[in-house]
Amino acid sequence: MPTLRLALAQMNPVVGDIDGNLEAVVERAHAARAAGAHVLVTPEMVLNGYPIEDLAYRATFIAASRAAVERLAARLADEGLGDLVVIVGHLDTAKTGALASLPDRLGVPKNAPTNSASVITGGKIVARYDKHHLPNYGVFDEFRHFTPGDETQIVQVGGVDVAVAICEDIWQDGPSAAADAAEAGLLVVLNGSPYEAAKDDVRLDLCARRAREGQCALAYVNLVGGQDELVFDGDTIVVDSGGELIARSPQFEEDLLVLDLDLPAATASMPAPGTRFHGLRVERTVVSAEPFPEPAERLLPKVAERWDDLGERYQALVLGLRDYVRKNGFSSVLMGLSGGIDSTLVGAIAVDALGADRVFGVSNPSAWSTEHSKSDAVELARRTGLALDTVAIASVFDAYQELLHLDGLAEENLQARVRAVIWMGLSNQHGHLVLACGNKSELATGYSTIYGDAVGGYAPIKDVPKTLVWELSRWRNAWAERRGETPPIPENAIAKPPSAELRPGQLDTDSLPPYEVLDAVLDAYVERDLGAAEVVAEGFDPALVERVVTLVDRAEYKRRQYPPGPKISRRNFGRDRRVPITTRWRESL
Amino acid sequence: MPTLRLALAQMNPVVGDIDGNLEAVVERAHAARAAGAHVLVTPEMVLNGYPIEDLAYRATFIAASRAAVERLAARLADEGLGDLVVIVGHLDTAKTGALASLPDRLGVPKNAPTNSASVITGGKIVARYDKHHLPNYGVFDEFRHFTPGDETQIVQVGGVDVAVAICEDIWQDGPSAAADAAEAGLLVVLNGSPYEAAKDDVRLDLCARRAREGQCALAYVNLVGGQDELVFDGDTIVVDSGGELIARSPQFEEDLLVLDLDLPAATASMPAPGTRFHGLRVERTVVSAEPFPEPAERLLPKVAERWDDLGERYQALVLGLRDYVRKNGFSSVLMGLSGGIDSTLVGAIAVDALGADRVFGVSNPSAWSTEHSKSDAVELARRTGLALDTVAIASVFDAYQELLHLDGLAEENLQARVRAVIWMGLSNQHGHLVLACGNKSELATGYSTIYGDAVGGYAPIKDVPKTLVWELSRWRNAWAERRGETPPIPENAIAKPPSAELRPGQLDTDSLPPYEVLDAVLDAYVERDLGAAEVVAEGFDPALVERVVTLVDRAEYKRRQYPPGPKISRRNFGRDRRVPITTRWRESL
Repeated sequence: MPTLRLALAQMNPVVGDIDGNLEAVVERAHAARAAGAHVLVTPEMVLNGYPIEDLAYRATFIAASRAAVERLAARLADEGLGDLVVIVGHLDTAKTGALASLPDRLGVPKNAPTNSASVITGGKIVARYDKHHLPNYGVFDEFRHFTPGDETQIVQVGGVDVAVAICEDIWQDGPSAAADAAEAGLLVVLNGSPYEAAKDDVRLDLCARRAREGQCALAYVNLVGGQDELVFDGDTIVVDSGGELIARSPQFEEDLLVLDLDLPAATASMPAPGTRFHGLRVERTVVSAEPFPEPAERLLPKVAERWDDLGERYQALVLGLRDYVRKNGFSSVLMGLSGGIDSTLVGAIAVDALGADRVFGVSNPSAWSTEHSKSDAVELARRTGLALDTVAIASVFDAYQELLHLDGLAEENLQARVRAVIWMGLSNQHGHLVLACGNKSELATGYSTIYGDAVGGYAPIKDVPKTLVWELSRWRNAWAERRGETPPIPENAIAKPPSAELRPGQLDTDSLPPYEVLDAVLDAYVERDLGAAEVVAEGFDPALVERVVTLVDRAEYKRRQYPPGPKISRRNFGRDRRVPITTRWRESL
Repeated sequence: MPTLRLALAQMNPVVGDIDGNLEAVVERAHAARAAGAHVLVTPEMVLNGYPIEDLAYRATFIAASRAAVERLAARLADEGLGDLVVIVGHLDTAKTGALASLPDRLGVPKNAPTNSASVITGGKIVARYDKHHLPNYGVFDEFRHFTPGDETQIVQVGGVDVAVAICEDIWQDGPSAAADAAEAGLLVVLNGSPYEAAKDDVRLDLCARRAREGQCALAYVNLVGGQDELVFDGDTIVVDSGGELIARSPQFEEDLLVLDLDLPAATASMPAPGTRFHGLRVERTVVSAEPFPEPAERLLPKVAERWDDLGERYQALVLGLRDYVRKNGFSSVLMGLSGGIDSTLVGAIAVDALGADRVFGVSNPSAWSTEHSKSDAVELARRTGLALDTVAIASVFDAYQELLHLDGLAEENLQARVRAVIWMGLSNQHGHLVLACGNKSELATGYSTIYGDAVGGYAPIKDVPKTLVWELSRWRNAWAERRGETPPIPENAIAKPPSAELRPGQLDTDSLPPYEVLDAVLDAYVERDLGAAEVVAEGFDPALVERVVTLVDRAEYKRRQYPPGPKISRRNFGRDRRVPITTRWRESL
């Protein structure tokens, strides 16, 4: 069996930074060469970043992408890397006639570009694969942006037939990537697969199934890094033709995974070029028909340890925040620290993401603030080293009330907004990015003040239900203890009953059901999209379900103006869930 | 030639209000019967409202829709309307095997419902057409939500073959609705076509072209009313087989257009049921093969007058605001009135939409407010009758500054935010919906204060460039004069140079190019998606283009948190333009 040495580059590109992303690929090519690799594979759309959304409509961006692939091919040859086979993801112009095989009535956009993988070697682009399956659900709008491909690409390298696919291609059933690979020795898959809790298990199962179906090894290379609401977790994996895991990159960091694979030699039984195979046109390219010399020393495949369930969610939040700050050119963040568990957890995440010297907390006590709300914020600052400033709101609040004489909810909201104006003023003065500290349970039910605690450029825990806020806080402290470090989160912030402290003695449970119940109902209604009657059938009180569902439906206007934050669940509040503000649909029981 | 009397119902349904929308259809059926009509046609999705967005994922909503069509059929018969042929738009479950003819690799969502038109008569649903073409561009996400149909439906009524199509079906070229109708006497098209400036001309041209291609008359029935960011303008039209306009409903109001059409009798040359015609399966239903008796009196077709170019845009803004307020259960609105032209125009629109007694303005003078900014607001109130309250901000501003000592831009923003908190406090206390008064030029360039002048539940002029703000203001005054009424907008508010009045002597032109130039560059870059070099090629200064493009790219984070408002242009800032916040792509020259 011929042996291929593969280098799989788990990379963190920046959307739109074509030059910077290209340099990063060149750098990985040097590293791959240094490690003796024959083939380097990048993630999906690595030259452009992902997702590019409506930048796909800009002719200038498409042209720049096309030029970049050609420039990359020349650069690699110039730098003595011409022998390496580089399979790189990028935006490109559609091939002529690409739409010919599609029913016209589907309205595939005309002149749309392609989501492509080019095979580069010897200073030239020798083959190009265009993604077939365009996901158009959840957070994805690919049918809006891309022309689907209808060709299978098989590239022979070192005597092994290598098939190429992109992300969604292996998630769909039917005549697709798995079938493409049926006669190949290796299927490489370029991915831009965003993190969701427990998705790594799903991905590994999927890769194993496709490998067994195709009876070929499968190398799955994923992006890593944050991009607006998405976090890519990496988790690049290789499985053998029996579906067994051979190698794995760590989650949430860049990596170059290099390994030797013994693969079956190409046979003459492959479908001939130009023929149709499972409805797709087969293209074949021979780069090198002779096996490479056996490597002097076999590389032992590395299988990185994974984070546990809570750990991976926490790390996703850290990476999402770090990349939003970094990629948007900020150097510091500011948040209101109420002493409550939400802002305390955000403070801990921010310190982990950026370092304590870039994190600024503001405590804004009011007449209704408890003593522990102030002391818990001080304790967080002491443990983590973040900077804490205190600005009492009474004088401003009183000045407003002399003008407005608000009461009830209006008076409660006023306190939250007085604080927000202070944070935004400090942000404008000092250039900090303001973080909104609301959790998913609040966002779902509208239990927050718009233009008050909801202000911010980024919302690190907007996809974290309250019960998970507590779990992650405990996990973070336990992680510190395991490493012999100070647990960052004051125990009292975890233990005390949650309160907005906008009136004397107020508790969240005055307005909401207990969070254990609320979060279970929200999981059913929001994440699993069940009807109210189905939620009740899961064992919840009908009146409570009706109340929660109504709260969710009526709070859409607030969510629409909420800052972006990292998606970690099956369905976050963002592009994942697009519902009308104006609707009279109410689930009946 | 047989004669059909058609009733075309231009209706304003509410999304999700299936019961209310059903009642409205029954009411139109009675009116159609009273007018002697044989056939009643509604707009697209009238039972559900449109667009329903991800409500399409809710099994409960789909089931309720299916039940509603059946209930409607029974109701019509019960109320003695069984003889009427009612063609009604609604959501439905996909037919078995609906996806069989589609390439699997397109990833059409499984179990997705259909965007359907049912033909109801004699208490039964006798035929159902499912929309073929699913728009997935601009504001539309239909490929995300619906299963496309692949059947042609021909229903013989009074001896005339009537073909059915839905909206996008007639916008796409190829074997589609126009071909369906090739052998029919009449094509009826159910539409949910949102308003865009000058779109009525485009629609009429399109209908005329399809009628000539199919050599059959065409009845185009559109929705009317506001739904979140969309405004449906109605403009229901009928053209004869030569493409000549015969009848037209007024824009921006409900209507029942009744007319007699002499149509060719059905011939035996039609494709047989079950055969395939241009790739689509033909279904035929005979409701009545005999021509109806000649009507005793011919109805003269009505051709409603259209608004002029500025008038229709103004009316779209009025209807969009009125429906957002009404359909979301508000009874009044509140806005900051600075005396500037933006808030003045919003005040005039609000009074036209809701009546002066539901419009509350607040003037918030600061140390930098000019005398005319106060007197122009007073003059607007005097002319329109809206309520004006004055709350000076100095005391609150000073209280903040004693704590924060902000300067520069931070100090300017502070003033805007102090005002916003006052508006939101009054809104919470009294239940008013707050209106944001920013225009499209500001939104494009980020020339506004987030959580300051940008607050609000709805933003009536967010899709109106500044130069159009002036034009619409002049148009509104001229319209009043033509009707012998008081022009609502003080001339000085139109004539004075625009200023945010956040520091002494400040003018918009300190920070921005003159609006005539700015708006022309924005039209090229935002609405027409040109690259920077192409914009320069249209005759603009390169440095200026680069500056404007950079401002637009950097302000996405503010737009993401801006309230919804009515789309009136080719591309509004909303679901029409989905770009990343995090991007380093910069147009180079």
